[in-house]
Amino acid sequence: MPGGLRTDLYELNMAASYLRRGMDGSATFSLYVRDMPKQRGFLVAAGLDDCLRFLETFSFEEDDLAYLRRIGFEQRAVEDFAKARFTGEVWAVPEGRIVHAKEPILEVTAPIAEAQLVETVLLNQVTLHTTLTSKAARYIIAAEGRDLVDFAFRRAHGVEAARAAARGSALVGFRATSNVEAAHEFRLAVSGTMAHSFISAFEDEREAFRAFAEDHPNRTTFLVDTYDTLTGVRNAIDVIEELDPPGEIGVRLDSGDLDRLSREARRMLDHAGLGRAKIFASGGLDEHEVAELVRADAPVDAFGVGTQLGVSADAPYIDAVYKLVEFGGRPVLKLSPAKASAPGRKQAWRGPSEDVLGLRDEAAPGPNHEPLLEPVMRAGRRLAPAPPIEEMRGRFERDLKALPIKASRLNHPEHVVAHTTAALAELTVEATEEARRQGRSNGGR
Amino acid sequence: MPGGLRTDLYELNMAASYLRRGMDGSATFSLYVRDMPKQRGFLVAAGLDDCLRFLETFSFEEDDLAYLRRIGFEQRAVEDFAKARFTGEVWAVPEGRIVHAKEPILEVTAPIAEAQLVETVLLNQVTLHTTLTSKAARYIIAAEGRDLVDFAFRRAHGVEAARAAARGSALVGFRATSNVEAAHEFRLAVSGTMAHSFISAFEDEREAFRAFAEDHPNRTTFLVDTYDTLTGVRNAIDVIEELDPPGEIGVRLDSGDLDRLSREARRMLDHAGLGRAKIFASGGLDEHEVAELVRADAPVDAFGVGTQLGVSADAPYIDAVYKLVEFGGRPVLKLSPAKASAPGRKQAWRGPSEDVLGLRDEAAPGPNHEPLLEPVMRAGRRLAPAPPIEEMRGRFERDLKALPIKASRLNHPEHVVAHTTAALAELTVEATEEARRQGRSNGGR
Repeated sequence: MPGGLRTDLYELNMAASYLRRGMDGSATFSLYVRDMPKQRGFLVAAGLDDCLRFLETFSFEEDDLAYLRRIGFEQRAVEDFAKARFTGEVWAVPEGRIVHAKEPILEVTAPIAEAQLVETVLLNQVTLHTTLTSKAARYIIAAEGRDLVDFAFRRAHGVEAARAAARGSALVGFRATSNVEAAHEFRLAVSGTMAHSFISAFEDEREAFRAFAEDHPNRTTFLVDTYDTLTGVRNAIDVIEELDPPGEIGVRLDSGDLDRLSREARRMLDHAGLGRAKIFASGGLDEHEVAELVRADAPVDAFGVGTQLGVSADAPYIDAVYKLVEFGGRPVLKLSPAKASAPGRKQAWRGPSEDVLGLRDEAAPGPNHEPLLEPVMRAGRRLAPAPPIEEMRGRFERDLKALPIKASRLNHPEHVVAHTTAALAELTVEATEEARRQGRSNGGR
Repeated sequence: MPGGLRTDLYELNMAASYLRRGMDGSATFSLYVRDMPKQRGFLVAAGLDDCLRFLETFSFEEDDLAYLRRIGFEQRAVEDFAKARFTGEVWAVPEGRIVHAKEPILEVTAPIAEAQLVETVLLNQVTLHTTLTSKAARYIIAAEGRDLVDFAFRRAHGVEAARAAARGSALVGFRATSNVEAAHEFRLAVSGTMAHSFISAFEDEREAFRAFAEDHPNRTTFLVDTYDTLTGVRNAIDVIEELDPPGEIGVRLDSGDLDRLSREARRMLDHAGLGRAKIFASGGLDEHEVAELVRADAPVDAFGVGTQLGVSADAPYIDAVYKLVEFGGRPVLKLSPAKASAPGRKQAWRGPSEDVLGLRDEAAPGPNHEPLLEPVMRAGRRLAPAPPIEEMRGRFERDLKALPIKASRLNHPEHVVAHTTAALAELTVEATEEARRQGRSNGGR
């Protein structure tokens, strides 16, 4: 569906007012994270592609309009909605780049009604993708180059969230996903072995392993903890020796003391001459547990992570907002306590030692300052198709390398605070005075 | 899309083996929550309707099959998948009923390949809906009869999750949602006022209020904290007095000390003779903050809740599993440490003073014990359409009333542990011995 109803009611209320009053002035809304979750030293910008797809097809269908009539919108408003499309401009931080609090992830400039109608989905999609991709990035840091596989499908908040987890984890460098539909859509490597139920469906564990190796000679990783992990490893070794499967071989440990069991399993496999067999660990692992196993040099070749990744369990939401910063050429802000916003269309630059937040038309603050936001949509049409995920991953890896350790560490990360340019600071002072005047005003003009 | 690829790869691997080997024995999988999140004294079963819709239409399309060929499934497996439908039986706890750890939320009985292929989506959907609906239930307890409105759309993990938040919150008794699309689909009351941007788009606050009241005379709730909350209330009163809108009137407080501000606002409104004006509070409220405002008797008529509700922030996942409990007439279990499952098709009964977990064919443990699971699908067809949300709400309200206080309280709830019948306990002992034998077995038979 083209998505006109995919919004909060208040967007429709406001848009109806703007359209009715002919308020078609150009508005710029800035979408950014007000404050970082305290467990995050950085975020990875993500979700832009789905936002742009939404904007390109945004409209109301007949059935949507009939519903709006039923819930009380007047005929004139419904006629205005019938014509609504997104015709505006979008600047955005490319997906995969690291962003910090207050730095716009995207900015929309459009006639105010249009820009307002799309708020809810833009916030929803940037929040979904940025939250899950940023969590996945922490696993990448924890794994120090060992393989990671996304197992989040069953525990994510819906099929759509599972898709975002698969995409976001690939974006930051996961090797594969278990999610077949997402792998298909995004051309990701897909990975999976067997469940405990498969073992239970056979007369005994060894018979189950034998059947699996016969049926899937190219992906023979055995789940070994259905009854007893080390007996399971023994059975796996026997079946591998018996059938000698030509493809990847390995065992998956899904419960118990993974450090100890991985060492025992490695010893048993090596002793059997199966040095090429991989050890796979899973079972509700968060990034700290992965980091601990890696630090202890447990012989785990790959980690399968699901539950904690799929909902970003330690920081399941981000404080993303969509604030009007300019309207009809006039900078705008909000004064609410602890929620004040800064006025004007913005640019953020990444410098060699700091980020700088300023106004879009300012010159870069230095010769080595790279702008983060770039134009991605004009007149409602995207300027380029979405880049491949590999390109996004390259951006992430480059930004991560340049990120201060204090922001990238997993425990008690420090937040990066962008410096403000003099021009933005000055505009904020002026706009604050103006807003105070408006707040005091009795409306008599 | 009919959803064949909507699954983890391992389901396809296992199903391919079962189909290849002619293993078409009937399998029962039990979907339940292994352990409760410690912040939850109960869960509200939800998501069944979406599960049944998925099962009714489950199949692979041509494009899906081509993809499976590309990723290495042999022709024979692809042909088997092409014919796959869900032809099984489902027993389930009706949506809206309260459930506890270990009590099956649903049980699927089908030829093992079919039952396996649908695992991922069933877990994903039950997890999504049960997690968010259970969180919403806590707000209902906190609000003690005051109105609640779902504002979660922008912060939920995707459009699908936002839909689940709207549906789940309505199910437990929220008065309305801001989510227009979900309101349309589920026939919910829809609610919304204005954003700060609307105020900023006018010359001053009072002019914005005046415009809104003129354009929306039937829903005139003013957001008053854009500049200064109490000045905002003053402006709202002036505009109400000036224009005398005929419909609902009110103010929304979205920041600051809501207790103090609501009392001041109430005093100002009453003083102006606007006793009928409602006070609406919002701004990242969790259920504890709502409970505190209610306990303090702050004059808030309705709470708008979003962020914390939309991701179930304090308990964003549940430990839902889908375990093979019977195959080919034989009870089955898994022994993995801390993850052991209980064998056999089950029933759970709600008694006057306790829940009882037993086998499906047992007689009820007492005359006042009501079975929780009922048949909802046979031969792949649902037995009845989904009931209206109101009916689900009735179930929830009845179960909540009968729930021990220690389980329903918001802080440090105690978990309810279902008693096990003698028959289930006995079967568990037998099946455990059998599983130990299988685990020890060298596969020589």
